Order: sequence, then C-alpha cells, then structure tokens
Amino acid sequence: MYGQVNIEKWKVFELTLNGPTNGNPYIDVKLSGKFITENDTISVPGFYDGEGVYKIRFMPQNEGKWTYTTFSNVKKLNNQKGSFVCLQAKRYNHGPVVVKDTFYFTYADGTPHHSFGTTCYGWVHQGDSLAEVTLKTMSQGYFNKMRMCIFPKSYDWNNNEPLYYPFEGTPLKNWNYSRLNPVFFRNIETRIMQLDSLGVEADLIVFHPYDRWGFSRLDRATENMYIEYIIARFAAFKNVWWSMANEWDFMDAKKPSDWDYYVEQFAKKDKFHHLISIHNGVKFYDHTNPYITHASIQSEDTYKAKEYRMKYKKPIVFDECRYEGNIPWSWGNLTAKSLTEKFWRGVTNGGYVGHGETYVTENPVIFPDQSYDILWWSKGGVLRGESPAHIKFLRQIIESAPAKMQLIPLFTWMPFSCVGVDREYYLCYLNDAQPRSVVIDLPKDLFYTVEIIDTWNMTITPIGKKFSGHSLIELPAKPYIALRIMKQ
Amino acid sequence: MYGQVNIEKWKVFELTLNGPTNGNPYIDVKLSGKFITENDTISVPGFYDGEGVYKIRFMPQNEGKWTYTTFSNVKKLNNQKGSFVCLQAKRYNHGPVVVKDTFYFTYADGTPHHSFGTTCYGWVHQGDSLAEVTLKTMSQGYFNKMRMCIFPKSYDWNNNEPLYYPFEGTPLKNWNYSRLNPVFFRNIETRIMQLDSLGVEADLIVFHPYDRWGFSRLDRATENMYIEYIIARFAAFKNVWWSMANEWDFMDAKKPSDWDYYVEQFAKKDKFHHLISIHNGVKFYDHTNPYITHASIQSEDTYKAKEYRMKYKKPIVFDECRYEGNIPWSWGNLTAKSLTEKFWRGVTNGGYVGHGETYVTENPVIFPDQSYDILWWSKGGVLRGESPAHIKFLRQIIESAPAKMQLIPLFTWMPFSCVGVDREYYLCYLNDAQPRSVVIDLPKDLFYTVEIIDTWNMTITPIGKKFSGHSLIELPAKPYIALRIMKQ
Repeated sequence: MYGQVNIEKWKVFELTLNGPTNGNPYIDVKLSGKFITENDTISVPGFYDGEGVYKIRFMPQNEGKWTYTTFSNVKKLNNQKGSFVCLQAKRYNHGPVVVKDTFYFTYADGTPHHSFGTTCYGWVHQGDSLAEVTLKTMSQGYFNKMRMCIFPKSYDWNNNEPLYYPFEGTPLKNWNYSRLNPVFFRNIETRIMQLDSLGVEADLIVFHPYDRWGFSRLDRATENMYIEYIIARFAAFKNVWWSMANEWDFMDAKKPSDWDYYVEQFAKKDKFHHLISIHNGVKFYDHTNPYITHASIQSEDTYKAKEYRMKYKKPIVFDECRYEGNIPWSWGNLTAKSLTEKFWRGVTNGGYVGHGETYVTENPVIFPDQSYDILWWSKGGVLRGESPAHIKFLRQIIESAPAKMQLIPLFTWMPFSCVGVDREYYLCYLNDAQPRSVVIDLPKDLFYTVEIIDTWNMTITPIGKKFSGHSLIELPAKPYIALRIMKQ
Repeated sequence: MYGQVNIEKWKVFELTLNGPTNGNPYIDVKLSGKFITENDTISVPGFYDGEGVYKIRFMPQNEGKWTYTTFSNVKKLNNQKGSFVCLQAKRYNHGPVVVKDTFYFTYADGTPHHSFGTTCYGWVHQGDSLAEVTLKTMSQGYFNKMRMCIFPKSYDWNNNEPLYYPFEGTPLKNWNYSRLNPVFFRNIETRIMQLDSLGVEADLIVFHPYDRWGFSRLDRATENMYIEYIIARFAAFKNVWWSMANEWDFMDAKKPSDWDYYVEQFAKKDKFHHLISIHNGVKFYDHTNPYITHASIQSEDTYKAKEYRMKYKKPIVFDECRYEGNIPWSWGNLTAKSLTEKFWRGVTNGGYVGHGETYVTENPVIFPDQSYDILWWSKGGVLRGESPAHIKFLRQIIESAPAKMQLIPLFTWMPFSCVGVDREYYLCYLNDAQPRSVVIDLPKDLFYTVEIIDTWNMTITPIGKKFSGHSLIELPAKPYIALRIMKQ
C-alpha cells in the first residue's frame, strides 16, 4: 500500500503495470480499468507501452475519492485495485473544452473558450530542437489551439522522413501493421502535454491523405487497433480534440461510410467525450451527424459563419481559410491583411477561425524539394508573418468582452458584420468599407460608449461622448475599422 | 420635293410633321411610319413632341435607298411619303451594341464592345452646367456606358427637384398622367446623343423605386403610354440600352409579373432590338427570360461571373458591385483598391463590371439633406476616386487583346482566375495572393511571352525570356498581380 494518491481534477491518473512481452501485446492482451466514484462508474481501456509495460490512463472529472479495478485476460494485469483522490483544479486548469449552448465552446469549469487555432501539421515529427522552437513560438500567446497530424506528413516542404513511425518495420513501406511503435506515440503525447502546459488545445488529426508510407490506406483491422490505441493513450489528456481527417474527401482509399464509422468509434469509445470533428478539402462532411461536435471547415468565406451556424446548429470553426504566405499554391499565399480580415469577418459573424503560415524564405520556389525551408504550417518553428500579432489583438478584444458573454451574430448588412449581446455589447466590423460615418440604431433607453478599432494598425480609440438611440458615429474613412460599443 | 436625303447607317432619320394641338395628342393621335428597303420593311411609332409637332424617328440598319409612308388617324399626318439613302457608317460609328456568341457584346459592325460602365442615376435632371462637367469627365475615356434613370430620383444626396418632370402638372404630386411633358424627354435625348458622341452607351433605367412624386406607382395605362413614348422617342438612338429597373425588387407597387410584362413590351415594340435587362436589389430577376439580353446584376461577388454565365447563358454585367466612396451605406464606401479588385475578378471570370462613386466631400455626413454634396453616382460632376484610372488601365489591357478575341474563362482555382483563348492568350489575376512564384502548364509545342501586371501600380513588366510547357514564373510576392501570357 502506498500513501494517498492525489490527482488534480482533469489531470491524468496513470496506472502502470508490468505484463507479458511475448506474443503480440497489441492484439493478444485485453486490458481495461473500471473507475468508480460516488455517482459515477467509467471503464477505460489500457494500452501497451512497450518493454512489458502496460498503462491505464484516466482523467477524473469529479472531485472526491475514486477506486479502480483492472480487468484483463492476463492474470498479472487483472484485478489490480487501488484508489486516488481527485482534488479541485488549480488556477489555469479549466478542464477540457466542450460545446455549450449550441454554438460556443467552454472549458469544463465554465470558462469560455474562444478558439484561435493555428496549424503545424507535422511539427511533432521534426525532432526536439525544432519542437522547442515551435513551443517557444506558441508560448507567445497568439493561439490557443494547434491542428496537428498524428501520422507523418508527405507533401511539398514535408519531404524529410519523420523522427519515428507509428508501426514496427522499416520505411518506406515495410511495416508490420499488427504492431504499433510506442516511441512514436510517446513523442506525440509529450507534445500534447507541452501544449497543454501553454494552454493550447491539441486538435489531433487521425487520418490524412499526405502519405508515402501507406498510412492513408490501412485495412479496417489495423485502423481499429490504431483508433483504440490512441483513445486509450491520449484521451486522458484534457486538451485533446479529435479531428477525423484533414481533407477527408481527398482520401481516395476511404468510402464516405468509413468516415461515419470512425466518427462513431470515437464518440462511443472515448469515455471522456472529447470534441470530434472532420475537416474537408472541397466537399463538406455532413456536420449534422450528431456525433460531430462542431463543424471544422475549410473555406475562405469565413463570413458565412452565420449561415453555417443556422445550417449545422454547432460551433463553426474555419480551420483553414487560406494561409498567410508566398507559395505558389493559392491556399498558401494570402497577405497578412487578408488573413486578418478573414479572422475579423469570421468572428464578427459568430464563427471561429484558424491560422496557418506558408512563407518560403530561402530561395525562389524550386520544385521537387524544399527541405531547407521550414514552413510553420508544415513543421512549426518561427512565425514570419504579420497576421499573428493582429489575430492576438482580436483575441484580446474577444476575451475582454464581459465575462462569459456569448457573442451572437446580430444584424448584418453587407459588409457590416456584428456580434454581441443585445443591449449590452456590440462588436461590428466594417471590412474594406471606408465610410466617413455610420449610423447605428442603439436602444433609446440606454447610453453607450463607442470605441473605434483600427484592426490593422491595432489601435482602440474611444469617442469622447455617450451615444443613445439613432446615432451618427464619425469614422476615419479608411478600411479595416471595427466598432466596440458597450453599455454604460 | 427635296433633294436626296442621306442618312449614315445607324444614325437617326427624323421625320417632322405638323398636326393637331387640340384634344390629347398623346392619346388621341395614332401615328406610325413604315420604312421599306430592298429586303426589309419596318414599322415604327411616331410621337408627339409638343406644340403641334409630331415626329417619327428611324435608325436605318441597311445601306441603300429607303422609302417610307406614314399612317395616322389624323388625315394631316397620314400617308406622308418620302425616301432617303442610307450611307455607310463613318469611322467611330460602329452601330448599336448587340449580343454575340452567347456571352459577349459587339457593336453591330462586328467591333467588340467590352463594357466598362459607370452610374450617374440623376445626372440628366441637374441642369446644363453640371451636365457639361459630367460630359467632360466622361470624355476622359474611363467608361463606355452610363447607367441613368429616366424618371428623376429622390434619395439621399438627391433631394433637389429635377429640372423637368415627365408629366404635365405641378410637383409634388399634382400630375396630369394623361399628358407627357416633351421638354423632359427632349432633355434626356440630348444627353443620350451627347453620350453617343463620346462613344458611351446610355443604359436607360425605365422604372426605379427612389421616388417622392408618384412615378414609381403609375397605373398600367400610364405605364403603357410612357413605355410606348420612350420607345418611339429614344429607340432610334443607337447607343440606347433598356434597363427595366434599378432594384426591381424594391418597387413595392409592382408585382413580379409586371416585370415580365415590361420586358415583353420592349422586346416586341422596339423594332431596333436594343439590349434589354433588369437590375436587382437583393433578389435576382430570372435572367433566363428569353426577352432579357443580358444579366444585369447587383452583387459584390463579381468572381461569380463564371458561374452566372453557365446559369444564364448570357453576357453577365455586374452593374453594381458596391461603389468607391465614403458614405455610411455599405454599398457606397468601398476603397478604390477593392473596387479595382472587383473589376479584375469580374473580368478575369468572364464578366463585365460597372463603376460608381459616392464620396461625400464637404462635411462629415449629415442626415436629412446633403444637397451641397454632388456625388458622381447621383448627379455626375467630377470623379474624385482612384478607381477610374485603374479601371481604364484594365480596359486598355482588355481592348488590346488580339482583335475580336472573346476571352473565355479558363481554369480557375481559388483565387486564381483566368480568361483567354486556349493556346493563344491568357490573362490571369491573382487577387490578394502574394506568391513568390506560380506554376502554369502552358502548351509544350509553343512559346509564350509573359508580362507581370501590377494592377494597383499600373505597371506592365515583361519577363525577359520565353516560356513553354510546365513553367515556373517568378513574381514580386505582393498582392494585386496579374499575368498576361501571349503566344509568340
């Protein structure tokens, strides 16, 4: 017997057991743990971590005493019992992100989560030194979510081999698909935990089409083993989100019904109920599928957030709306100004928008190999663009809205978009309009302060008077202006 | 008998007759002329021009001798006969604009017409001195079409009374709707002719909703009289286009079927078959109506030209895609850069785009009355914005494409739009993309010159080498770049 084990709410309780190394532990050994507290019983799967080590991970979501019992077809792993006490969460630990009130995200403790994501598809596969640079960049607080692939990525500017492979075997294609490689997954979970320590959600991409090793064409048995393994291994980390795919419609080895299958697997097997989404290339997945928690959209038309809210009745996340950069491909050569606009238009239409950056820096683009170029979108590293600072400016404005306020798309007339809470707070964006003034009909029985936000120059200028009712607001007659209007 | 009368092809033959002044000449007197040439017989209506003067106007479209006979229920006007000789058109007289090959405009002599329109809704109602300024502005060659209302306009910055009224009576609403006012229409035809002398098409708006006099709520008999009158009076001017409405869907006194009726009236009664369109506010008219010659669209999404071509199988004209200006209303506060972009995107997707300008210059905007501000969009005058020069730059590029070339939308991948003629000529626009290079697959058996067009700085820079096949083209890595690629 040990002394009392204390686990902070939403942190990971990890039970380590020693078991067999013979046979195929990934397939032969069944292991799960049943966790019991006063009003709850939750069974979660364990997993094999290599070298005879088996683990069961659990994220307690209720404070108080928990007991557990293991179940296994291996005697040594079976009927292990113990307990721990779940203590209240400390500051900065708000728990996992969940959907609230149809269109919004919140942490489990009720703190609003305004998603401002970025994308570094292959950053976990580049080794420690570059990952440290990436984490340092992420610590600057531009973003609170990272989209990242579990499997390594093969694509332009992603042609190096990854640090590790998910299966035993040798590249390029000589894999033993019946045996996973724990080192590969351990590396990923290290990155997940590092992101969590920075307050960043890890939006894990389960499948993707950018592949030269065969991982986009697994058979169903291997897929099942992989899915069960990553759920057993990663689901106890509070900052995990499950993204079934990047560009699901570009994966020609899979049928549409396969995606329904994966979605259902995660919804049923992840007992911690992390967010589940599926990201499109061109063709939108049917986000009305009830297992999907939010619409993860690729489209440059972020102003359609309002329309998609009505269509899908879920949070709308434009995870890719083209990236700031200068590469030949049109999804990766947006100006900072345009990407900043897309963020403002998305947010002021009730959506969430994601960032990516694709600057080639060394040379004019050369075709087959760009291995000397480290693009944020592919490998992480440093940010070179101007949009992150502007996105952070927007994020600060959104996060400084009155506590727990859920911004609702209000009136919209092209190109004037507005979110807020009626009578309380309005954030309006004028996009490329350059009016000398605008007229807004505010409630007549209240007084409001109005601030002029220059979204590009990142200034907030209060107008030195109060407004009420039919209000003429003089403006600087230049583009990229927003208005913040708050009840006195 | 007079000596031989010569009329240049597509110019106006006008027969003037004296007739009764008693009764109601607008209603009581029937008058038409039958014009006969070797292979053609055309009957056109006459009209009453006031003070006992009746006229019949005719635009001969075939060279050679024409004879005519008048028909009337008034003896003095009946059975008048005569002849004239239609001579070939002189230089700069290309005839009326017609539709060619489904998607294009051409003058009757085969010269391509690339439509670059602008909008001065109420310019004809402001008096001679301002009209002279407007005409001088139009003589600078930015635009080759003017959208203009026949009826006076009542709207913000349009609150002065017009020079003349279309009916006898006194403002605001004391009209004798059974009697038209020839002075009103004579003023308009003067402006039509002046525009023609500048090579500018007059896109006449028959009805519009901006009204304080009652002209948007005529009864059907009055509408018929008005329609027949303007056809009799204006249709012989070669530069006339008929636009049934501005913002037809904002005219609450009219039913949808009324618009079908008007369209049919013009199609059947105008024997010179001028272009016919109908312009929307929010709701598109069904441009598949076979009497409609082209789709006249209000939408800021000019890049959808390609889509609308497929939908309507007609020329696509974005007559309003928001205006350059600084007024509070979102349709009138675009930056010059944004409007220029909309032109480029529209044109490189196979459409035509129109301009408007709404700069308030004197004061911050004041509500009820802005009569001291002369906005181009409402009254004409001078242009203050930067978009016209940029539009002219684009126009020159389009007009300098190889002779009679009809630019076809070719491949498009967001945001890369391209029109051209396969293997011959390509004009591609990169919008807000800022790639350091692009890759284009040109035919392998030919060589091409490539020029980099900076659409905002209005420079054209040839690349000093020839391209063929899979071509990497280095670019300046900034937005608003276009490429002109021509076969050697």
